[in-house]
Amino acid sequence: MESRKKLMHAKITSEVLRYCTDFFHRKGFVQLMPVILSPITDPLGPDPGSTVIKTGEIEYLGQRLSLTQSMILHKQIAVKQGIKKLFIISPNVRLESPARKESGKHLFEFSQLDFEIEGGKREDVFGLMEELMKGTVEHVKKECADELHILGRTLPAFSSPFSCYTTHELEEKYGADWETAASLAHSAPFWALCHRREFYDKEDPAEPGHYRNYDLIYPEGFGEALSGAEREYEYERIIARIGKDRLDAGRYAAYLELARDGMLPSAGGGFGIERLVRYITGAKHVGDVQLFRRVPGEQVIV
Amino acid sequence: MESRKKLMHAKITSEVLRYCTDFFHRKGFVQLMPVILSPITDPLGPDPGSTVIKTGEIEYLGQRLSLTQSMILHKQIAVKQGIKKLFIISPNVRLESPARKESGKHLFEFSQLDFEIEGGKREDVFGLMEELMKGTVEHVKKECADELHILGRTLPAFSSPFSCYTTHELEEKYGADWETAASLAHSAPFWALCHRREFYDKEDPAEPGHYRNYDLIYPEGFGEALSGAEREYEYERIIARIGKDRLDAGRYAAYLELARDGMLPSAGGGFGIERLVRYITGAKHVGDVQLFRRVPGEQVIV
Repeated sequence: MESRKKLMHAKITSEVLRYCTDFFHRKGFVQLMPVILSPITDPLGPDPGSTVIKTGEIEYLGQRLSLTQSMILHKQIAVKQGIKKLFIISPNVRLESPARKESGKHLFEFSQLDFEIEGGKREDVFGLMEELMKGTVEHVKKECADELHILGRTLPAFSSPFSCYTTHELEEKYGADWETAASLAHSAPFWALCHRREFYDKEDPAEPGHYRNYDLIYPEGFGEALSGAEREYEYERIIARIGKDRLDAGRYAAYLELARDGMLPSAGGGFGIERLVRYITGAKHVGDVQLFRRVPGEQVIV
Repeated sequence: MESRKKLMHAKITSEVLRYCTDFFHRKGFVQLMPVILSPITDPLGPDPGSTVIKTGEIEYLGQRLSLTQSMILHKQIAVKQGIKKLFIISPNVRLESPARKESGKHLFEFSQLDFEIEGGKREDVFGLMEELMKGTVEHVKKECADELHILGRTLPAFSSPFSCYTTHELEEKYGADWETAASLAHSAPFWALCHRREFYDKEDPAEPGHYRNYDLIYPEGFGEALSGAEREYEYERIIARIGKDRLDAGRYAAYLELARDGMLPSAGGGFGIERLVRYITGAKHVGDVQLFRRVPGEQVIV
């Protein structure tokens, strides 16, 4: 049964990749190549939820290059170079603490579908993602009906717009660790707005200490699907936010050089393909849907 | 003009990814997720053409993990796990010597479309690739006619089957360094058979010292497009070939453990997306088609 399950997960993963790739092309997005090594990458902090123990790095011909933790900074640079709507399917390496082994949703290597829209707003991302989520689930139900049946997974149809809460509302109702409890209390995906997060997520000019960002949360306890935001794009704001996060600005020198006369306003997001497949298949652990398992704290076989 | 060229290259890259992804799905291939870190990766040797100076490695929770140089070993394992036809678009990291800077075709990071067919033969790969090459070129001609016009690139229609030579014939005609000369002498892609290469390329049982492998070569001096082979799949043959190449068998322990009762016979290949885009656009250097340039010996900006 285990090897049969592996094949069913592989087929569903393939159909998810197929649908998502085609969807973004149909919507006029330009598909970029992934980047794996760069002098700059997403700091993944000061997200209080981040437990990455170090950034993967190598040395090559005298340069220190980091393994991609997410494509966010490269997305902003691509938008500045004139690509108005873009997406990438890129491996992300996040060397998580072994304590994350049991979370059910953490991997030290996974693929993220990352997209960005020049001049985009939160509402543009919501509309796009809701259409994508519904479309992907319908596609898999149609193409992999036998697999879902054997896996015992029934997926409800869900309707737009998805419910939407601020993290402040969610904290009040479910406590500081609201994600799992709120996810369990829902049967359809929902949006959570306003997270204290990385420097590139726009702080609301009208309400300092509040943020123009959002997560999409899967229902039934599966937790976070997507993180995204409208972006900080003004140089002075970016510098101020990097300072506030006590990050080493030198690590972002090349990015800051390009940002000196401003990035362009944009909004976007990124979602893990494996987490989407986990939600669709109802797998216990996100590592269960990987053909080559990458769970923090487990030995890597191949 | 440079920034305009970047956008045209990005659009053509996007259309190439779109066409290739859709093509393999239409042909019933299962799309796998890329792997970036693993205890095992392609040794890239003893290819006399390989000038990789080291394998990228990191240490994570007590394990030494290599950055993917190609997905070949994982493809064989996936076939053994029951996936009969598969493809992957995966970043490959090959830390090339800075001497490769001027070759026009080397990158230290690129994305390869890698595919494998259980029970496949050379002829299956030839038919598939010739259809893909023709289809991709026709698709780009249709979708990016303006870009090709501005870039001044005219692509001939080419017909199947492509010409086919052994490397022995090519060496005799063009000398030991036949690739560029033979490429320049052709106006359509052609196949070159029988390379002395890595342990996983099948040695011809009827003709020891000859190999059931193949390269596809672009015309007009653009050189190698694809490498592929029918594979060694019997444990004793794999062990013998690893020994002959003086590789440390310990580095392949997990692969050899899975191969102990035999891999399955298969054939496949892999081609670099950037090299295909270079050929289609007629760019001088393969790095010119990358939005984020990764040329060995050049400083990496972002």
